[in-house]
Amino acid sequence: VDNPLSLSLIQDAAERLKGRVVRTPLLSSPMLDKAAGCRLLVKAEALQRTGAFKYRGALNKLLQLDPALRQRGVVTFSAGNHGHAVAAAAAEARCPALIVLPKDAPAIKVENCRWWGAETVFYDPATQDREAVARPFVEKGMTLLHPFDDLDVMAGQGTAGLECIEQLAEQGLSLDALVVPCSGGGLASGTITAIRSAFPEAACYVVEEAGFAKMAASLATGTPQRRPAGPPSLLDGIAGPLAGTLPLAALRAEGAVGLAVTAEEALDAMAQAFRFLKLVIEPGGAAGLAAVLHRKVDFVGKTVAVVGSGGNVDPEVFNRAIAPPRG
Amino acid sequence: VDNPLSLSLIQDAAERLKGRVVRTPLLSSPMLDKAAGCRLLVKAEALQRTGAFKYRGALNKLLQLDPALRQRGVVTFSAGNHGHAVAAAAAEARCPALIVLPKDAPAIKVENCRWWGAETVFYDPATQDREAVARPFVEKGMTLLHPFDDLDVMAGQGTAGLECIEQLAEQGLSLDALVVPCSGGGLASGTITAIRSAFPEAACYVVEEAGFAKMAASLATGTPQRRPAGPPSLLDGIAGPLAGTLPLAALRAEGAVGLAVTAEEALDAMAQAFRFLKLVIEPGGAAGLAAVLHRKVDFVGKTVAVVGSGGNVDPEVFNRAIAPPRG
Repeated sequence: VDNPLSLSLIQDAAERLKGRVVRTPLLSSPMLDKAAGCRLLVKAEALQRTGAFKYRGALNKLLQLDPALRQRGVVTFSAGNHGHAVAAAAAEARCPALIVLPKDAPAIKVENCRWWGAETVFYDPATQDREAVARPFVEKGMTLLHPFDDLDVMAGQGTAGLECIEQLAEQGLSLDALVVPCSGGGLASGTITAIRSAFPEAACYVVEEAGFAKMAASLATGTPQRRPAGPPSLLDGIAGPLAGTLPLAALRAEGAVGLAVTAEEALDAMAQAFRFLKLVIEPGGAAGLAAVLHRKVDFVGKTVAVVGSGGNVDPEVFNRAIAPPRG
Repeated sequence: VDNPLSLSLIQDAAERLKGRVVRTPLLSSPMLDKAAGCRLLVKAEALQRTGAFKYRGALNKLLQLDPALRQRGVVTFSAGNHGHAVAAAAAEARCPALIVLPKDAPAIKVENCRWWGAETVFYDPATQDREAVARPFVEKGMTLLHPFDDLDVMAGQGTAGLECIEQLAEQGLSLDALVVPCSGGGLASGTITAIRSAFPEAACYVVEEAGFAKMAASLATGTPQRRPAGPPSLLDGIAGPLAGTLPLAALRAEGAVGLAVTAEEALDAMAQAFRFLKLVIEPGGAAGLAAVLHRKVDFVGKTVAVVGSGGNVDPEVFNRAIAPPRG
C-alpha cells in the first residue's frame, strides 16, 4: 500500500504555518514516567491555538485557498474542536465560516465557534447525516473544509509530528513508539507519517474508545468503517461517525495498530496530566496517554511519544476526572 | 539604589541550566486578550519540572556547590514548591536533601518532596520559626538552600525572564509591563532584572494577596517586612512569612510597584487559564494573571507579560476555581 500523504507535503505545511501556530512543548515528568513504566513524552497540543491540533490542518488548508474561493467562505462539520479551529483560522484569513455541529456538542465548543464570528447550524446525529446538512452550503459556493479526509488537512496536523522529531533531537532522544488518539484519522495519519520519516522502525498506534473502534475495524477490513451507534460519549473529540479514506490509506501504509481505552481510563489519564504535567486535556484527547498509562501495550523501558490534544473540556467533566467521587 | 543582581549572573545561570530545565512556552489567546483588555503573554512556568519556576533557582544553586558540600546535603524550608524543586534538583545532583515544611502544607506538596527521596520535617507556623527548625541541620554541615534570599537562586529564577525576552522577539513583540506573583521575591527580582535589561522602560509589578502584601510594605519602608498573621491562605505559594533582603534591594532598584489581589480573583484567573490556555495554575501562581484580568492597573492597549507558576494545586481547590458553586 502506498501512503497518499508525503513528508514533503508536511514539510511544506510546516513552512507555511511557521510563526502562525504554537510550537507546543514536548512535556515529560519523571513521576509520569514511573506511572507509565517507560520514558514518556507528551506533545502538548492542547496548548495549540483554539486548544487543539485542529488549528494546524484548518489553517494549512485555508492558506492555500484561492482568494476568490476564500471570499465565499468555508463550511465544515465537527464534534467541536475542528469547528473551533476553522472558525479561528477563518477569522485570521478574513473569510466567512459556517460550522455544522451536533446538537449535543458541549456548550463550550459551541460558544468557541461563535466567538470568532462563525455561524453555527445544528443537526441531530441520531437522525441526520452531517455531510448532507453541509451540502446545500457547498452547492451555494462555499468550500467544504473536511475535518480529516483531505491531504492538506492531514499535512497540517502532521506538522505536530515534525516538531516532535526536532524536540526529541533537542533532548537527545530516539523514539520507539508513537501513540495518537484517533477519530477520522487526520492527526494520526499526519503525525505517524511525519514520525516514520525520522524513525522508520517506530511502532505506531491509534487509540479509540473501546467498543467504538472504527479505525481499528477499518485497518482490519481495508475499507473505512462507521462508528457503531451508541449514547453520547465522554470522548466526544474522537467520536466522529466515520474513518477517513485518505487517513486509512496512510495508516495502513505505515502499519499502524489500533488500541482501545475506556472512558474511565481516559478520565484517569486526564487526572495524571493534571497532576504531573499541569496540562488540561479533554477525554478524547487523553486517549493516547490512557493507552500508555493503562499498559495496552508493553512499553517497559521504551521511549514513547503521545499526542495530548485537545483541551476543550467542560469544568464538570474535568472535575469528574481529577476528583472522582469516593467509595 | 544599586541592584545586587546583575544580568550577567542570570546569563551565567541560563548557560548552566541549558538543557536541564524546560524552556516553558509563552502562551497567549485572543479570547484571553479580550478578557484582559490588552495583549497578554503568559510565561507558563507551571510546565517547569516539578510544576514551578523554583526548580530553576534550586538547580542553579546546587550546580555551583562544592562537591564536598554537596555530599553533606542541603536543607531548606518552603511552602512546598521550593521544597519540591530542591528535592528534585538534589536527586539529579545525587545529593541528600531535607525539607522543612509547615504542618498545614497541601498533601500533594508533601508527597512530591518525598517522591524524590528527600526527608521531610514539619513545623507549626503559628508557634515555630522555620529558620530555627532548619538551623541544627545547618550546624551539622548541611547547606541551607534559601528559597529566595540568595543571588544564585534569584539568578536561576531570572532565566525565565531571559527566555521571555527571546520568546517576545520570536513573536515580534515589545513589552510594556511585566507582572509577577511575589512572596519572598526570588522570582520577581530575577525576572524583573532580566526583563529590564531588554526593556528598560517596562513597568514592573509584584502581586501579593490583599491584606498580606509584605513586599509592597517593604518597598514602601525600604526594609523587609513580615507577613501579617492570618489563617492559612488559599494562595499558599505566596504566603511565606518574610520579604527577602536581596530581592527587595533588586526590586527597589528596578522601581517595582506592588499590587494586590483577593483569593476569589486568583481563583477566577485559574478558571480563565483553564478555559483559555489549558494550563493548570495554583492560586498563588495565578496572582499575576489575576491582577491583569481584574484590572488592578489600566493596561488597555498594552503588551503585558505575566508569570504563571506554580501549578501544584489540590483537585478540590482546582474544582472550586473552575466550577464555583452557583447562587
